Amino acid sequence: MRIGNISEEESKHALHNMDDPYSSDPQRHKVLEMHTEKPFNAEPPSSLLIENFYTPKNHLPVPEVDPETYELEIEIEGRTEIKTLRLEDLKKLPKHTISTTLMCAGNRRREMNKVKEVKGLSWSLSAVGNATWTGVRLVDVLKSVGIDDTTQGFHHVHFGGLDSDTANNPYTASIPFYKALDKHGDVLLAYEMNGEPIPRDHGFPIRAIVPGTVGARNVKWLGRIFVAKDECDSHWQQKDYKGVSPSADASTIDLSKLPSIQELPVISAICKPANGESVVVKDGHITVKGYAWSGGGKKIIRVDVTVDGGKEWHVADFDHQENAEPPHHWSWTLWSARIPVAQGQKTVEIWAKAIDSSYNTQPDTIDNIWNFRGFLNNAYHRVKVNLKP
Amino acid sequence: MRIGNISEEESKHALHNMDDPYSSDPQRHKVLEMHTEKPFNAEPPSSLLIENFYTPKNHLPVPEVDPETYELEIEIEGRTEIKTLRLEDLKKLPKHTISTTLMCAGNRRREMNKVKEVKGLSWSLSAVGNATWTGVRLVDVLKSVGIDDTTQGFHHVHFGGLDSDTANNPYTASIPFYKALDKHGDVLLAYEMNGEPIPRDHGFPIRAIVPGTVGARNVKWLGRIFVAKDECDSHWQQKDYKGVSPSADASTIDLSKLPSIQELPVISAICKPANGESVVVKDGHITVKGYAWSGGGKKIIRVDVTVDGGKEWHVADFDHQENAEPPHHWSWTLWSARIPVAQGQKTVEIWAKAIDSSYNTQPDTIDNIWNFRGFLNNAYHRVKVNLKP
Repeated sequence: MRIGNISEEESKHALHNMDDPYSSDPQRHKVLEMHTEKPFNAEPPSSLLIENFYTPKNHLPVPEVDPETYELEIEIEGRTEIKTLRLEDLKKLPKHTISTTLMCAGNRRREMNKVKEVKGLSWSLSAVGNATWTGVRLVDVLKSVGIDDTTQGFHHVHFGGLDSDTANNPYTASIPFYKALDKHGDVLLAYEMNGEPIPRDHGFPIRAIVPGTVGARNVKWLGRIFVAKDECDSHWQQKDYKGVSPSADASTIDLSKLPSIQELPVISAICKPANGESVVVKDGHITVKGYAWSGGGKKIIRVDVTVDGGKEWHVADFDHQENAEPPHHWSWTLWSARIPVAQGQKTVEIWAKAIDSSYNTQPDTIDNIWNFRGFLNNAYHRVKVNLKP
Repeated sequence: MRIGNISEEESKHALHNMDDPYSSDPQRHKVLEMHTEKPFNAEPPSSLLIENFYTPKNHLPVPEVDPETYELEIEIEGRTEIKTLRLEDLKKLPKHTISTTLMCAGNRRREMNKVKEVKGLSWSLSAVGNATWTGVRLVDVLKSVGIDDTTQGFHHVHFGGLDSDTANNPYTASIPFYKALDKHGDVLLAYEMNGEPIPRDHGFPIRAIVPGTVGARNVKWLGRIFVAKDECDSHWQQKDYKGVSPSADASTIDLSKLPSIQELPVISAICKPANGESVVVKDGHITVKGYAWSGGGKKIIRVDVTVDGGKEWHVADFDHQENAEPPHHWSWTLWSARIPVAQGQKTVEIWAKAIDSSYNTQPDTIDNIWNFRGFLNNAYHRVKVNLKP
């Protein structure tokens, strides 16, 4: 069941505030917990998340793009010709649909912040969403400009958005050449989300969809593709989405020397019950629901849940899982588990961990993966609840 | 520096014991710690491991294969024709060399056994080795029988060895079709190991090399390839190399319903100092060395080491790492770290954890990944040592 979608609530403001670059942003659903208004970053309650709610996460103001005049530029490093494609040109290429989960590297940052303060928006566990995307394959578009996976000399493909910051710089990011040119990699230039034109908050009219890869590389309002030798030099590529050691010093570490986050690790979260909730015990059991996902096209093969600190682990049932095989399995797995609790027990702490098709699993604790940016929190999710007999 | 290689010690027994199927096994290096003699399973001391020692691990007696009469059979399910290739036919195909780590799913089982008893040989941390392998690509061989990655209807490629058990059944295993047919997947039919014909213990004359994938699918003494709809039905594919929940009951679980282990998760180990060793403190520091690796072609991007239970993590230096980019990075990373220790401290416990290019990292504890078969122990490696001033 779909509870809501941002586009349903979308409407233009009657009057624009000309001094505010965010004044023409779309209106958003009231249920969203807002982290920043400008740019808009908000997440739905975790209980709605697994009912198909789509989290908007933006770096810059939402641009107003006219589909009639929209153009996508494609440039190859070292070549002078720039190819431009209009929306109708793109739509003439073979149509392809995939279902994929997109996740922010800052998902579950709030828990990390509780261990020790981190920098960044306080995302709970809903900086993630799952949707179907329809569009054209990037491999087909690049083939039309003479680039395929045998082309030598290029290592990265850059995406530039039509949004821009106050200095008029667009949002940009890049992905490795192998991912862009992998014919099974399913990188799309999407023009539909869940069968409808992409809502403005999600990248209308074209969004780069890079399944299995951190949300930040799935560039919205796509305006430019650049095939290059080097990685994109933007702030977001070089100084932001990076993983560091728990002991890394924010003031001295040179983030630009570290590999950028692309594929995300295996993760899971408990969506129902929420932390602190009171749960009715039925026939000596409680029911726990959540999501699990792994980047890089890996499939979730098991979710283990415990309510006694790991003495006994219960294997969760899968309520929803796509059939796609790894390493081309892009969507999350929704799971539930019915767990026995001891009679008279007043509270329990529920832990969940997922195992993916490469048998990677989650780290036990946040303490040992903590990092000052609060990225990549894939430690066991732990939720304390009160039990009602 | 290479300390030793099994082949150097190899010589034929003067007399065969006709009643013993293992009587013609090669002789092995004396430094190896033997886990079983028949079939031969042994590992070198961890201190020698990172100096390039190759661990022999066999499921069945080592066959004597005459390279003059050797034939590889290739069969496609549903087709009557069986193609046979002689060694010289294989060598006519394009030659390809890769460097890869091969690891047993039971590596580091000994530590898991200490938490609670498991079934299986008590491998320490040396059920792993790194070597270069030269041969022909499986994709080229399969192309010669009309199979490529666009061929529909097949999901697995089986490998059969020329070894056999007492009931005359060969060792067999299978890998997913996508891995076998991935032109960047580097699956080889290898005829050389480190530039020499493959030693008998390692698969002479042909071994299937499936980089990034558990050792058990890298079938030695390869005699047959079978392109099939279904996975191989052998004991080793269906009832052995599987991952299960910590609470799975050995007597009731149906292992054949679980996905077989293919790609292995991220792992690291401390090779020097060994557990219980006395270490000289120099200028207030100790030096720690080890390996780190991840399956599926992922590259190690960081190794963190702590001697104070995670209060401070030190980023290790990489002493050896291949240049290959993920997801085609097959070899381990050898690392070292110089760690400060408090003056007067008598003992320390060293922990190491690796992070790979998908930002997966190791679980903190064995307790929560324990399984009755003792597979997939990729928890932090922890080594207690005495400090000598």
